[in-house]
Amino acid sequence: KTFDIFLIAAIIISVLAVIADSVNALHPRYDDLLLALEWFFTIIFTVEYLARLYCSPHPWNYAKSFYGIIDLLAILPSYIALAITGAHYALVLRLLRILRVFRILKLLRYSAEANILARSILQSRRKIQIFLFFVLIIATIFGSLMFVVEGPENGFTSIPKGIYWAIVTITTVGYGDIVPQTIIGKGLAGVVMVIGYSIIAVPTGIITAELANELRLERSDKKCRNCGRAGHEMESQHCKFCGEYL
Amino acid sequence: KTFDIFLIAAIIISVLAVIADSVNALHPRYDDLLLALEWFFTIIFTVEYLARLYCSPHPWNYAKSFYGIIDLLAILPSYIALAITGAHYALVLRLLRILRVFRILKLLRYSAEANILARSILQSRRKIQIFLFFVLIIATIFGSLMFVVEGPENGFTSIPKGIYWAIVTITTVGYGDIVPQTIIGKGLAGVVMVIGYSIIAVPTGIITAELANELRLERSDKKCRNCGRAGHEMESQHCKFCGEYL
Amino acid sequence: KTFDIFLIAAIIISVLAVIADSVNALHPRYDDLLLALEWFFTIIFTVEYLARLYCSPHPWNYAKSFYGIIDLLAILPSYIALAITGAHYALVLRLLRILRVFRILKLLRYSAEANILARSILQSRRKIQIFLFFVLIIATIFGSLMFVVEGPENGFTSIPKGIYWAIVTITTVGYGDIVPQTIIGKGLAGVVMVIGYSIIAVPTGIITAELANELRLERSDKKCRNCGRAGHEMESQHCKFCGEYL
Amino acid sequence: KTFDIFLIAAIIISVLAVIADSVNALHPRYDDLLLALEWFFTIIFTVEYLARLYCSPHPWNYAKSFYGIIDLLAILPSYIALAITGAHYALVLRLLRILRVFRILKLLRYSAEANILARSILQSRRKIQIFLFFVLIIATIFGSLMFVVEGPENGFTSIPKGIYWAIVTITTVGYGDIVPQTIIGKGLAGVVMVIGYSIIAVPTGIITAELANELRLERSDKKCRNCGRAGHEMESQHCKFCGEYL
Repeated sequence: KTFDIFLIAAIIISVLAVIADSVNALHPRYDDLLLALEWFFTIIFTVEYLARLYCSPHPWNYAKSFYGIIDLLAILPSYIALAITGAHYALVLRLLRILRVFRILKLLRYSAEANILARSILQSRRKIQIFLFFVLIIATIFGSLMFVVEGPENGFTSIPKGIYWAIVTITTVGYGDIVPQTIIGKGLAGVVMVIGYSIIAVPTGIITAELANELRLERSDKKCRNCGRAGHEMESQHCKFCGEYL
Repeated sequence: KTFDIFLIAAIIISVLAVIADSVNALHPRYDDLLLALEWFFTIIFTVEYLARLYCSPHPWNYAKSFYGIIDLLAILPSYIALAITGAHYALVLRLLRILRVFRILKLLRYSAEANILARSILQSRRKIQIFLFFVLIIATIFGSLMFVVEGPENGFTSIPKGIYWAIVTITTVGYGDIVPQTIIGKGLAGVVMVIGYSIIAVPTGIITAELANELRLERSDKKCRNCGRAGHEMESQHCKFCGEYL
Repeated sequence: KTFDIFLIAAIIISVLAVIADSVNALHPRYDDLLLALEWFFTIIFTVEYLARLYCSPHPWNYAKSFYGIIDLLAILPSYIALAITGAHYALVLRLLRILRVFRILKLLRYSAEANILARSILQSRRKIQIFLFFVLIIATIFGSLMFVVEGPENGFTSIPKGIYWAIVTITTVGYGDIVPQTIIGKGLAGVVMVIGYSIIAVPTGIITAELANELRLERSDKKCRNCGRAGHEMESQHCKFCGEYL
Repeated sequence: KTFDIFLIAAIIISVLAVIADSVNALHPRYDDLLLALEWFFTIIFTVEYLARLYCSPHPWNYAKSFYGIIDLLAILPSYIALAITGAHYALVLRLLRILRVFRILKLLRYSAEANILARSILQSRRKIQIFLFFVLIIATIFGSLMFVVEGPENGFTSIPKGIYWAIVTITTVGYGDIVPQTIIGKGLAGVVMVIGYSIIAVPTGIITAELANELRLERSDKKCRNCGRAGHEMESQHCKFCGEYL
């Protein structure tokens, strides 16, 4: 328990150190402190990783699991950065330094509810994929149309830029860096906004409705003694498959 | 099956080719390759279209169906572009080239879930129409008011521009290209944002509620012959209350 | 029936005329046409209003009703504009010309579903009011804090401007005309965005849940023969108040 | 009752006075009036606070309660500002003047429905925390990636700035003050928008579903003594199935 709290603190401070490292103003002054902190936490996470590997009944299964990969990713960049020396690897080193920020994912292990949320996102995976697929099709078509209508002189220099504009618009982010200038373009943009906005209500509604159903049913964990199948509702008194009394 | 995967790949590569074609930097270098690809895919889709026409028991019904029109639209622009020659048709040719991007709609055929989503959007069609109608009325009224309040000197040069601003604001896109400058205008904008935002929750709620109902009603209407109670799930074979065979 | 379609067309063309009137480029050329159209439709709507007043069993009730006021508002501006002459009333005349756009509200009468939507918005009126009240309190507090943190040098010249920024941010419109510049201001803005965003999910959820309940219950219109009270569920066989068989 | 309305008016006018005080244009002219108003309301709220302390059976419990703290906060800044004199406390004085805006929270006491809303937000507290935690993790990871991809030359001068950008994007606010410039950055931004947008639907769905459950369960747990069936509404006095008195 105490060890858990210590590890959570270590993760948070370690990520804060990476973030502080990126702030230009602080960089030169606290360089040594941040380097010391960095190696201090790397060693702690290495010990943690080895301990987990050692304690696990199936070390290989742990290593392959989501948290195993996260734990490895939390320490690997520091060691690779050590191996690479040479000025022309500056970009690689910079990337490695930032990758340490992925340590924040280690926090997920300590939040039971985050796991529930993650699982329900995973269960809605298929729905979300189709939703993304839809958004992408709409974005491609309207992005291409805007490329023709507005043209390069109004910022729509290529179809990918048009698609980028369409995604920014459909998701209602609306940066305003690329904006329709012609009358037809503005009309089309209005159509994209309103249609996109009302179409998006439907998948949200489906996900909500399915989650509501799941929660409402609160299926019992009981398995039928006769046919062994689970998934019965709480109020059920008989197995819905074979009629056996539960 | 293999043929389906081949066709999906063909659709995606074909659309990517159209997109790549629009990127200025690539244009001169890969011109020949893109033209070759273009005709390769046009011929494939033409063969596919003719095959589908031939295999269909009612060719005319297929040709009139949603997918029939999509399939035709996927090949037509290339042939029309061939027929049109002459410098003064440059815009038409450019439009035809972009229309090929609609080929992406052919992908819808291969996603069963996308069809479900499309069908539920179609079922909410009436709701969405009324929603659009509402948004348009609100946008017209507030767009006109802003035109009076702000005037042409602050970017609101006409009522259509005011309506464009109102749609950008109600859908919470908020580009920031036209923004109220006067105090009254800012107050009115605040009202549009908050009122619009809270009113929009209602249609979303209605769609969600109806979809939830739809999903909930997937329960069979059958009543148990023994105890007379209904509300069984579709997959149930026995009454969940008394165990009687349904 | 035919008369209804004619009136709907009249309303739409009349509103389009007001919109066209505001477009600078068109103004001088089609001035006479628009004036003629304007008086043509004003006379039609006047005849309609008088006919409705005459046909109504209680003319005064109609005149006081929502649609009565809308119908009056659709014709009044034109007559007032006739009465007012003089250069120093230019602004009033301009306002009166735009007020004619409210004629679009006459369309609501012809859409049964729009009325259902309007009624469910009216039923959620109390919820929406509280929601607005909440948003206003949050906007006032965070707007004032930002005024202190950012100060006039970063665009937050007064608390009202801070409140305007807060509303733009909470509703996720995000114009970007006023934006936090200092580090503390950006942090505070992040808090406003995320907190506001997650708090807003709750009222939306409440409205959705209540609408879902309403739709699910689908209370019958039957009144109890004994106690005369209504509001029973569809599946009810006995009055829930007095036990009488329905 | 009359006293309540007087207090509500006092709160609103007092907050409006603070807001008016911040508007530069008004400041010098109405300085004396605002100061007089300020002390008038401070004395009223002080009397109210003392009266509540005196009337409460457990004064200490009231003082510790949410409303007790709000009531104290409403008067404290004015007295502290009186105690502090000296030019070098200008910033503190300015902050104290703005803190009086928190008086608006006193309004919450008078709205029963606002309390219901506040309570349901409080009940969803845990859900909202996890949601914030999720948003923060996603924002940290994508903010860091954008810092590497875009770099300081495109406005992403540090990871905190990247995180600020990510929060602005995920919550769909989209100010447009920091915007990706490179192609990779724009692609990554598109991913953040779409993924973030679809992931956010899930927690909203969970909150909605749970609230729907809460509202649905307002039905009593009582079972009918005659037919044994449950699911009656709270207001029911007779079983809806057999008419037995509950």
